[in-house]
Amino acid sequence: MRTSQYLLATQKEVPSDAEVISHQLMLRAGMVRKVAAGMYNWLPTGLRVLNKVAHIVRDEMNKAGAIEINMPVVQPADLWQESGRWEEYGPELLRIKDRHDRDFVLGPTHEEVVTALVSNEVNSYKQLPLNLYQIQTKFRDEVRPRFGIMRGREFIMKDAYSFHLSNECLDSTYQLMHKAYCNIFERIGLEYRPVIADSGSIGGAVSHEFHVLAESGEDDIAFSNQSDYAANVELAEAITLETSPEATQDLQSVDTGSASTIQEVCELLSIEPAKTVKTLLVKASDEVATDLVALIVRGDHSLNDIKASKHAWVASPLEFANADEVVTATGASIGCLGPVQARVPLIVDASAAACADFVCGANQNNTHYTGANWQRDVGEFEIADIREVVAGDPSPCGKGNLEIRKGIEVGHIFQLGDKYSKAMNCGVLTETGKHEVLQMGCYGIGVTRIVAAAIEQNHDKFGIIWPDAIAPFKVVIIPMNMHKSHRVKEVAESLYSALSDANIEVLFDDRKERPGVMFADMELIGVPYSIVVGERNLDNQQVEIKNRRSNEKTVIAIDEVVDTIKSY
Amino acid sequence: MRTSQYLLATQKEVPSDAEVISHQLMLRAGMVRKVAAGMYNWLPTGLRVLNKVAHIVRDEMNKAGAIEINMPVVQPADLWQESGRWEEYGPELLRIKDRHDRDFVLGPTHEEVVTALVSNEVNSYKQLPLNLYQIQTKFRDEVRPRFGIMRGREFIMKDAYSFHLSNECLDSTYQLMHKAYCNIFERIGLEYRPVIADSGSIGGAVSHEFHVLAESGEDDIAFSNQSDYAANVELAEAITLETSPEATQDLQSVDTGSASTIQEVCELLSIEPAKTVKTLLVKASDEVATDLVALIVRGDHSLNDIKASKHAWVASPLEFANADEVVTATGASIGCLGPVQARVPLIVDASAAACADFVCGANQNNTHYTGANWQRDVGEFEIADIREVVAGDPSPCGKGNLEIRKGIEVGHIFQLGDKYSKAMNCGVLTETGKHEVLQMGCYGIGVTRIVAAAIEQNHDKFGIIWPDAIAPFKVVIIPMNMHKSHRVKEVAESLYSALSDANIEVLFDDRKERPGVMFADMELIGVPYSIVVGERNLDNQQVEIKNRRSNEKTVIAIDEVVDTIKSY
Repeated sequence: MRTSQYLLATQKEVPSDAEVISHQLMLRAGMVRKVAAGMYNWLPTGLRVLNKVAHIVRDEMNKAGAIEINMPVVQPADLWQESGRWEEYGPELLRIKDRHDRDFVLGPTHEEVVTALVSNEVNSYKQLPLNLYQIQTKFRDEVRPRFGIMRGREFIMKDAYSFHLSNECLDSTYQLMHKAYCNIFERIGLEYRPVIADSGSIGGAVSHEFHVLAESGEDDIAFSNQSDYAANVELAEAITLETSPEATQDLQSVDTGSASTIQEVCELLSIEPAKTVKTLLVKASDEVATDLVALIVRGDHSLNDIKASKHAWVASPLEFANADEVVTATGASIGCLGPVQARVPLIVDASAAACADFVCGANQNNTHYTGANWQRDVGEFEIADIREVVAGDPSPCGKGNLEIRKGIEVGHIFQLGDKYSKAMNCGVLTETGKHEVLQMGCYGIGVTRIVAAAIEQNHDKFGIIWPDAIAPFKVVIIPMNMHKSHRVKEVAESLYSALSDANIEVLFDDRKERPGVMFADMELIGVPYSIVVGERNLDNQQVEIKNRRSNEKTVIAIDEVVDTIKSY
Repeated sequence: MRTSQYLLATQKEVPSDAEVISHQLMLRAGMVRKVAAGMYNWLPTGLRVLNKVAHIVRDEMNKAGAIEINMPVVQPADLWQESGRWEEYGPELLRIKDRHDRDFVLGPTHEEVVTALVSNEVNSYKQLPLNLYQIQTKFRDEVRPRFGIMRGREFIMKDAYSFHLSNECLDSTYQLMHKAYCNIFERIGLEYRPVIADSGSIGGAVSHEFHVLAESGEDDIAFSNQSDYAANVELAEAITLETSPEATQDLQSVDTGSASTIQEVCELLSIEPAKTVKTLLVKASDEVATDLVALIVRGDHSLNDIKASKHAWVASPLEFANADEVVTATGASIGCLGPVQARVPLIVDASAAACADFVCGANQNNTHYTGANWQRDVGEFEIADIREVVAGDPSPCGKGNLEIRKGIEVGHIFQLGDKYSKAMNCGVLTETGKHEVLQMGCYGIGVTRIVAAAIEQNHDKFGIIWPDAIAPFKVVIIPMNMHKSHRVKEVAESLYSALSDANIEVLFDDRKERPGVMFADMELIGVPYSIVVGERNLDNQQVEIKNRRSNEKTVIAIDEVVDTIKSY
């Protein structure tokens, strides 16, 4: 491709409304343009990358035995009424009416359509298992689309749906998909983690998210430095190996005045937060007689709302007691609560329970205890895992310690169970002639989002640094002042022909621009290799090859260029 | 692919609601399934064909220098308001509102979006010409979707839009696209014609439709048997080579009683329709003083409404006078009108004007003339081409005679001119620094419709006969009673491996079905070649290869199979 016959569309300025780096670079590199909030034109450079991602996804899905189909973007409402999602789904589901005033939706996912399809087409256990997928435009009417294509309204997703007679069979396809997803992200060349996830409202028990690691990620991922274990911090189990040492101090009440936060108390008493516990009062479930229960974590730890809300004593969703309720229940204000002589049931995080001689509120205003110890000073309490893991925690898998990194969710696989198949009566006749409702799995990849995530992980101050597998072009020819030098032009043209003939995707920057402009544009676009054709090297029948990632420059003979580029 | 791990979804019964053969066969061959009126799931077999068509289209567009982009399915209404189509477009444009009550449309085409894009991105004449295309899901809310995917509501289109500084440049890209379209249909393997078309309401002057010839087509195409000339019959120029012979009969009034149609008059007088003329009264334009004008064509010819309505004397759109108006204007009823002593201006088709001694109405009830002759018996009249061409007419190109065949429109190319670029102020700075509005072309191909059109042209009573280039599989292995014969199974499996390894798309029918069922399914699906593995031929280390189109059967050695299939 010649830049003169291409829509390069690079921009110098950082667009003012682009918050994240991938959004900025996609605009600057001429990859996308906004049409409306959350809707984008994919320009040639962007589409080339997108198509490569889609190709890798398709190829690995096919290899894993999934079969490609294509379902409509517009879906009839009656299917959504059948599954119950017509009512459940919020305003992100764009509901539309056709000219005959019939209800439709713009599909955010296709569980209903595919379940209806399988229900009609598959009648016998012999046709199972079946894993159907598509790569297709979806629409989700986000209230505040942002971060460019990262959280757009119209986007491209690979969604797969598998159907099974048994949970064992579902699990086996689930493992195949897990492996296929790993293959996909490895082939693309991204640092990623499959992460144990909360399956949330979509139903089903087992679920993994696939995260591309990047500082700008919205999720915190905890993973072992010595194994494959990775989980969203919200779900990662906190392991406490310490056991509570013997008490060495007496329980002593101290006036802490207006100090109410852990930080203020620690400063006042000159101690580390790890030597304190904090006590939080939340609404109790029906299982306990009191209105509130106390949640206690070490002063340097954070409460994990999800873990806490799963405790039988705690009302779900988690609701903190307000200031008045706290005073009514304890006689003290929020900053001075503690486990000693508490009037509400106590749930103590395992790490807090391993403390000795700790500082806590005294359930009396302006007062804390020092030298508190569980066995000696506190009544009954329950130990549970209710904190968020921190870096350095032992990994729950038993191997290594946890690291915590930011991640961008680009894939999600679920064991759905029978949520949709039951509601839509999707079943088959088994070998014994019995009608059985199918078990389903669903497997999504954000194809457009991968493009942005790849940029978040691979860029520098000059622009994008594409992994080879998804680069828009493999190599760019940059001729220095071609319009003044016949020799430069001749060599550049002949290299362009030779590389094209070798089926190498080459961009030939034949614009009448200064070398500086060309270098800046090509670094911005992130083409992995540049061939710089200049007078000086031509004296020796040579050109320079520059590696975008390593910045390494090599001068090689003109007639070695094609083989060298091929070998990369 | 093994059928046991595939969604074959063939059906024996002809679906009751499928009127056309392609719709019937696509349902029976398991290619598509209806989700709602005009919206279909593409099952694996259908999608394989669709993807091949799309691949050929993409490849030829790239070769012709067009650049692929991707624009959103959902488009903001403000762009349509800017172009004026928000008002112009009827209820086929599905208008929707997002959660913030903002107006959008589901895109039936993308002139607005692409014009806005080019308006923003292209500023200099140096970036022109530019030809941008996409292959993408479109939505058109047809009032009565029918014929399966042939006239669906959601469909896939390749739409391209080119931008130019001059009409010469536009014409040059238009010719490139014309050639690319020919390449596309030739590569797919379809009998087709590029047809001179009416550009209709989309504006612009030059336009060609591409039609796949098939008996079930909705359009009549006239084309020369000795040249490339082809036109929609509505537009094909009628050439009249005859000149009016001398009068040999006297003008004579005859009582024709209740005979009022050409057929009735011809039977009564024992003459051929070609020896009569018929006179039709229509509303006149402001250019003539009378309310009505008469259109006269030979008795065996049909009036061409489009041609007639383009005549300066005729009101456009064409409107026939009703019975009362005819009596008021002529004194006679509709069945007895004629040019002799007519009281309204006469427009006579050239072929009718070449008649002598003809029969016509006498402008008096129950009365006709015989022996009428233009020069002697009729006053002033104008000669024009207002009839539809018929088979055998001389071709307007000067070479050969016209044939007329039915066609299915699968592509349409237009020289749009500045309709959109002017309304949306899309221009660039020229070499002299002047701002100039761009000239546009647009080029559409119905990707999904091609699949149906290919079937309409290529089928027999057993099913589809795919052209090799778009067949879902190149070859199918049909093992005879594999589940009883170890030898058959072994050979079938090894052929499957060998063909797969040779990158040949092979379907292996490994179902436990009777040979008859397998043959019927594979003929229905239309796979070009079958390899029948049976005990009898295995005795000689041979298998049978069957050609779906020619029905030819060849017995060849097992170890020649891969090379033989490759050679096809």
